[in-house]
Amino acid sequence: MVIKPYGYAIWEKMQAELDKRFKETGHENAYFPLFVPKSLFEAEEKNAEGFAKECAVVTHYRLETDPDNEGKLRVDPKAKLEEELIVRPTSEAIIWNTYKGWVQSYRDLPILVNQWANVVRWEMRTRLFLRTAEFLWQEGHTAHATKAEAIAETNQMVRVYEEFSKTVLAIPTVVGHKTESERFAGADDTLCIEGLMQDGKALQMGTSHFLGQNFAKAFDVKFQTKEGKQEHVWATSWGVSTRLMGALIMTHSDDNGLVLPPNLAPIQVVIVPIYKGEEQLAQISEVANKMVAEMRAKGISVKFDDRDTYKPGWKFNEYELKGVPVRIAIGPKDLEKGTVEVARRDTLEKEFLQQTDVANKVEHLLEQIQINLLTKSQTFAEENTRVVDSWEEFKDTLENKPGFIYAHWDGTNETEERIKSETKATIRCIPMDNPQEEGKCVFSGQPSKQRVLFAKAY
Amino acid sequence: MVIKPYGYAIWEKMQAELDKRFKETGHENAYFPLFVPKSLFEAEEKNAEGFAKECAVVTHYRLETDPDNEGKLRVDPKAKLEEELIVRPTSEAIIWNTYKGWVQSYRDLPILVNQWANVVRWEMRTRLFLRTAEFLWQEGHTAHATKAEAIAETNQMVRVYEEFSKTVLAIPTVVGHKTESERFAGADDTLCIEGLMQDGKALQMGTSHFLGQNFAKAFDVKFQTKEGKQEHVWATSWGVSTRLMGALIMTHSDDNGLVLPPNLAPIQVVIVPIYKGEEQLAQISEVANKMVAEMRAKGISVKFDDRDTYKPGWKFNEYELKGVPVRIAIGPKDLEKGTVEVARRDTLEKEFLQQTDVANKVEHLLEQIQINLLTKSQTFAEENTRVVDSWEEFKDTLENKPGFIYAHWDGTNETEERIKSETKATIRCIPMDNPQEEGKCVFSGQPSKQRVLFAKAY
Repeated sequence: MVIKPYGYAIWEKMQAELDKRFKETGHENAYFPLFVPKSLFEAEEKNAEGFAKECAVVTHYRLETDPDNEGKLRVDPKAKLEEELIVRPTSEAIIWNTYKGWVQSYRDLPILVNQWANVVRWEMRTRLFLRTAEFLWQEGHTAHATKAEAIAETNQMVRVYEEFSKTVLAIPTVVGHKTESERFAGADDTLCIEGLMQDGKALQMGTSHFLGQNFAKAFDVKFQTKEGKQEHVWATSWGVSTRLMGALIMTHSDDNGLVLPPNLAPIQVVIVPIYKGEEQLAQISEVANKMVAEMRAKGISVKFDDRDTYKPGWKFNEYELKGVPVRIAIGPKDLEKGTVEVARRDTLEKEFLQQTDVANKVEHLLEQIQINLLTKSQTFAEENTRVVDSWEEFKDTLENKPGFIYAHWDGTNETEERIKSETKATIRCIPMDNPQEEGKCVFSGQPSKQRVLFAKAY
Repeated sequence: MVIKPYGYAIWEKMQAELDKRFKETGHENAYFPLFVPKSLFEAEEKNAEGFAKECAVVTHYRLETDPDNEGKLRVDPKAKLEEELIVRPTSEAIIWNTYKGWVQSYRDLPILVNQWANVVRWEMRTRLFLRTAEFLWQEGHTAHATKAEAIAETNQMVRVYEEFSKTVLAIPTVVGHKTESERFAGADDTLCIEGLMQDGKALQMGTSHFLGQNFAKAFDVKFQTKEGKQEHVWATSWGVSTRLMGALIMTHSDDNGLVLPPNLAPIQVVIVPIYKGEEQLAQISEVANKMVAEMRAKGISVKFDDRDTYKPGWKFNEYELKGVPVRIAIGPKDLEKGTVEVARRDTLEKEFLQQTDVANKVEHLLEQIQINLLTKSQTFAEENTRVVDSWEEFKDTLENKPGFIYAHWDGTNETEERIKSETKATIRCIPMDNPQEEGKCVFSGQPSKQRVLFAKAY
């Protein structure tokens, strides 16, 4: 996956918004090594087992001239590593091996650290932004003196993701617990946010794990309590990745291309001049440059595209495809009337505005677009979330009205597995603060105390 | 190498300052893959040859349970890659293979792209921050229609590094060309900035390469000119890394620890209360919190360390070690007199200031410290730069007065090599706009037209 500048600028904006929230909740950034020696990697057995099948492995540290192929290189067999290095699929192992040296006493806790990094998970079937061998992400890794504190941290961070998704990405999510079979390898509990894409499939957008004392035990990380006892440290980890780019694209796009929430748009407003000859362009540029200055003063990111190598129609198309929230066109008639044409990307509506009003109105319009995109995606999620009570209805809904399904489940791995193999639907989560109600499992008919969230997923 | 939060915060500040400068000069960020297939890696032969001996190589993509060792994993021999993947030591190959798809016409040029990334160069002898197997850096990769434009870009970026080093790191550097033997593998010319560390050794702090058409030819990247001809694209690449952390430490530290330039200090001012009992602490806190608010309003990063788990003396030590530019102490006598004690880290001088003056004076003091650190390092560099005319003097200076040496060189690889093997000194660079003067090579006595910069180096 290559992330081109326009896409990377969106990722940078996501990073800035997330990083601010991490720092506001007391976290600091740090950096840990890309390569994990195999002996460390395998220390926490469940985690190791969970990732073993998708690990890129470094076995050699040198190339040499290939004697059989002029100008080519080959792996130097003499440069074989004594211990193989795993390219991190996630960093619990290397980090907890490091924390061992950082923690002696309760005074050294909590450790609230985040890392922005690349990770590699070998995938047989890749899918751009959603499932790539290498991806970019952030991974928080915290260490606490008590179980309660670690659980509170796990909850806090999944709520940070939920709020970020809603406010910045304009995507509503359901927050809940993963079932045991869907849990992160090495976690005691996995919380997640699940979004609903336009094709009715669910997307896991972020996870926050309560790791118990599993890693502290595997790496022997103990601390002295205030009372002088030795105890194992409690852990959490949490992350979101460039997969959020996929969520953004799949939630808001329409047949004309990308639709970007103003909070993430690298270009919020584009101004396109419509002119014949240098003189008209000069007049339009004067008006445009004044507007650019006024909008920039308000912190709006504006581009005046006066390139003469492309026609206005081509530019309109281009910026629609790129999802720029607001497009302003200025032509000769606008010069006469003191107007401009303002088009919004989300509804494709156009209106004429007085040039003197533009900066204020556009500022307001950007806020409206952000709200409208959230409202739209909320309405979509509501309309495609169904409560289902029979197996026939369950299968029919999945087939004909794909979306989120709330249904009773008997709580067993077996039923979960059979539903998955018969319908490809999985339990996305057991919602937080889930209302308890008596019912019968939609598949087995066994008694159930709550509905859980089902969907087909990416 | 693990970069702990305090160190990483310094790196983040460097990143922000550099990123601002890259964007101001028209560059955008993007992201390219970590793994380079061997067939791409070897396409530009000189580059491949130059890095072949320090490449980490991924050969397998899966681990499996080790049947001979319960609970352990081993590399799955069935999961051997058909083509090995090189962990990028630098990204020219993968990027130029991508640019091939981005460039058809002169309209697609220039490409002005930067990447923030990790790279791996296998090192037998590592040295923290200076030479680590994995390090963090930025690498700019630009593509141009003309040779002149590419050379101008190469020059521009080395000057950006020079200005950044001076203004932000408070480190003066010499800017120049590398000799042919020290050039980046695959470059037609390498520009660099060289700093002088306190032990008299030089440190290469950043490089900017004019790559000619070497990569365009290796990857067949051509464009159609305005006139309709097909031509190969011209290239540059330029980078600085976490090695700059080493430069910072080695330039400014003293026997008490780190000394940080205020422009990079994660904590610019620390306030330490000196008190007995809760009541005194409450009174001091009131004064301190008011000062904190005033300083934060000026954009100063302040920490009020009121932890009761450590004594003031311990805290003084700690912040001195960490290089915090300004320390403010407030004790009971200060409450009576309306004063505080202000200590600056660079000179270790202390003075008493009126509480009402503190915010303004500290703001000014931080500027003074930044300037003083640069003046100090400039004076050091001047005092340890010597013009030398005989071989005896050359060896004696290296031995007894280590530093930069300007001496005549006959321009041959042989002489450069022999000087290196006899003294360990290398030609750090041929300074930009180097004054031309007739002379005799300090080693061979052959005629020379200019002095070049010698030093022992890291």
